[in-house]
Amino acid sequence: MNWGEEAQRRLIEISGCSTDTDGVTRFPFTAEHEAANRLITGWMERAGLSVRMDAAGTLIGRKDGPDSAPTFLIGSHQDSVRSGGRYDGIMGVALGCLALEKLASDGTALPFAVEVLAFADEEGVRFPTALLGPRALAGTVDPAVFEMTDRAGTTLGQALRDFGGEPASVASLKRSPQETLGYLEIHIEQGPVLEQAGTPLGIVTGICGIERNSVTFTGETGHAGTVPMAGRRDALVAAADFIAAIDKAARDLDGLRATIGTLSLKPDVVNAIPRLAELSLEIRDLDDAQRAEFAQFAVRIGNEIAARSQTGFEMVQTYRQPAVPCSAPLIERLSNAAQVEDRPAPHMPSGATHDASAMADLCPIAMLFVRCKGGVSHTPEEFAAPEDMNAAILAAARFLAERTPIISEVLGT
Amino acid sequence: MNWGEEAQRRLIEISGCSTDTDGVTRFPFTAEHEAANRLITGWMERAGLSVRMDAAGTLIGRKDGPDSAPTFLIGSHQDSVRSGGRYDGIMGVALGCLALEKLASDGTALPFAVEVLAFADEEGVRFPTALLGPRALAGTVDPAVFEMTDRAGTTLGQALRDFGGEPASVASLKRSPQETLGYLEIHIEQGPVLEQAGTPLGIVTGICGIERNSVTFTGETGHAGTVPMAGRRDALVAAADFIAAIDKAARDLDGLRATIGTLSLKPDVVNAIPRLAELSLEIRDLDDAQRAEFAQFAVRIGNEIAARSQTGFEMVQTYRQPAVPCSAPLIERLSNAAQVEDRPAPHMPSGATHDASAMADLCPIAMLFVRCKGGVSHTPEEFAAPEDMNAAILAAARFLAERTPIISEVLGT
Repeated sequence: MNWGEEAQRRLIEISGCSTDTDGVTRFPFTAEHEAANRLITGWMERAGLSVRMDAAGTLIGRKDGPDSAPTFLIGSHQDSVRSGGRYDGIMGVALGCLALEKLASDGTALPFAVEVLAFADEEGVRFPTALLGPRALAGTVDPAVFEMTDRAGTTLGQALRDFGGEPASVASLKRSPQETLGYLEIHIEQGPVLEQAGTPLGIVTGICGIERNSVTFTGETGHAGTVPMAGRRDALVAAADFIAAIDKAARDLDGLRATIGTLSLKPDVVNAIPRLAELSLEIRDLDDAQRAEFAQFAVRIGNEIAARSQTGFEMVQTYRQPAVPCSAPLIERLSNAAQVEDRPAPHMPSGATHDASAMADLCPIAMLFVRCKGGVSHTPEEFAAPEDMNAAILAAARFLAERTPIISEVLGT
Repeated sequence: MNWGEEAQRRLIEISGCSTDTDGVTRFPFTAEHEAANRLITGWMERAGLSVRMDAAGTLIGRKDGPDSAPTFLIGSHQDSVRSGGRYDGIMGVALGCLALEKLASDGTALPFAVEVLAFADEEGVRFPTALLGPRALAGTVDPAVFEMTDRAGTTLGQALRDFGGEPASVASLKRSPQETLGYLEIHIEQGPVLEQAGTPLGIVTGICGIERNSVTFTGETGHAGTVPMAGRRDALVAAADFIAAIDKAARDLDGLRATIGTLSLKPDVVNAIPRLAELSLEIRDLDDAQRAEFAQFAVRIGNEIAARSQTGFEMVQTYRQPAVPCSAPLIERLSNAAQVEDRPAPHMPSGATHDASAMADLCPIAMLFVRCKGGVSHTPEEFAAPEDMNAAILAAARFLAERTPIISEVLGT
């Protein structure tokens, strides 16, 4: 059996659980989610797992270990963005099941319990919140999220109840760290690094911290014909200096990513000098200190530009999420498992957030990236090759079956 | 009589001819226009002029000269932008009437006929066209404009007819250049130059040519977290380099004004690299050759930036209007008239377009700028001081009464 081609077949089949055919649109707690869960249940059962859904809507396939051995978790999310692709999220569920199916077909018994988790909602498209499933396991759910509504006015709590979950029981889902060995998530890279490196798999060193800032330059408007250049206080010209300085500085820092993704002007007409330029500055880095230093640099350079252009400058942080490192022992174990013919899989940070970042509050985490075509995701063009998925399944199986006990590595005993 | 204070009184009174009270909103061929024309008729009659409206909706006050002497024209427009000020346009009509009223009260007879013209539509807010009145006199009206409609679906032709004009007769309004001595327009500066120079009046050397260009930089989008800085082709970063280069180069050129007034991004979200930056580049200069050279520079620097940032660059001219120089002999005559106590009025280009630019197709033109507070116009805060308007009235009266014949100067005989 070619595990990668079986993965491809299953991912094509489940991509039909979608509200549209131009890409995959599968939101949590919907008929499409239910249809997907029926297929995933089949995948889990073929791997020898017993299946149930927990109160937070996570579909769980479990195989007990000997005696009351602790549990190792493998997971990802079943939902997609609007008109997304066939791989983001759901591939991790499919490959997790196939890794266990391979181990079972090899007759390999694990010395611990194992679960595959298909989380309901990671993308946060239907409700203005996400990661309910992993947060429930980590005991970090804020009950206020159940009052959040989707566009139709349905609360998350109601949607979950209608789906067979139970908001009131979510708090009781909290797992014991002592009984949880770790968490592995397999995900497409969503970036170009593996493709450029010409290698199918990457070992994630951690999930980057993120901060978002709202930046404004305030100048003075005026008629584009009547105000001489010398007297201008053009907010856009000041913003342009800032954009150039940020890009240049970010390129000089290893691993940091700085992006100005939005920019709007006032008054925004062809024949008036812009009086206001408002832009977003997102900074991501695995190193929280380097990220904070870069934000300080941005404030310093913004103020310098404002002083010399006689404009006003303000930068306000609107969002912050600290970096989540992956577990060093799990990284090592995964590196060994993913190495093919003496060629080690590259280590790399994850610039995007994943279920793993919430799972890190419960247990040691590890992530395995799979090369994706063109580095693109969140579009119907998203693609991972069967042979790359096959490599990921074999790596995950080796990772689990490795004879050194996971628990001694994790707890350092 | 203080002519400046009388001007102020009249401008406050006529500002009531408006659809709103938060600023002046007076569109052409409306009830407000009709009410304004009743007041202007009174101003003209007090100056000893006989009043009629021509087929293009221009209110004309005329005083014949001796025998069949040729005519000198003074004019500006009655209409305003939406929520505009009390001075833009209408001030030139009021001061023209008061200059003639002053000459009449002084008993000064002019050796030529004189007319004050209150044009209907210069701002082009109601219909997507403007300058019907002066174009009619110059014989440059394109009859297609009568089919243009306002938001309510009324054609310009119908609106003009309902107002007492007649589209079919507009072509017959064309004046004879031989019988037209010249045209003087008094207008607020709409810029900060006179205020900064501390002087009430400015002599316009010409009306800048204008070109507008649509500029696009095309890069590649990607996830703000997963695409390393080194591989990015960020359309906004390329555009920022362009904006900085344009501003720097424009500051080095005398009289040129370059403005990037609009900028929009795609996809325009905080966590995605911009793949498209679309911006406007407006260039104004009294020197058409310098303007064209600057546009060539913009293309050259845009291509350079695109090459080094691996983006695509395109610049398409969307609008062009050549510069219109003022008449050298009229500039000299106006300079003499506007000089106060050996202090000459500064010479300056007009960055904005005026009725005079269309009148230049008929006869020599001159423009007198009046200082405005803060350089602002097109807002309710627009303000010109009574003493500055008084200076303009006296200068216009001296300009007209100067004993050297206008005609010999203009025709060089």
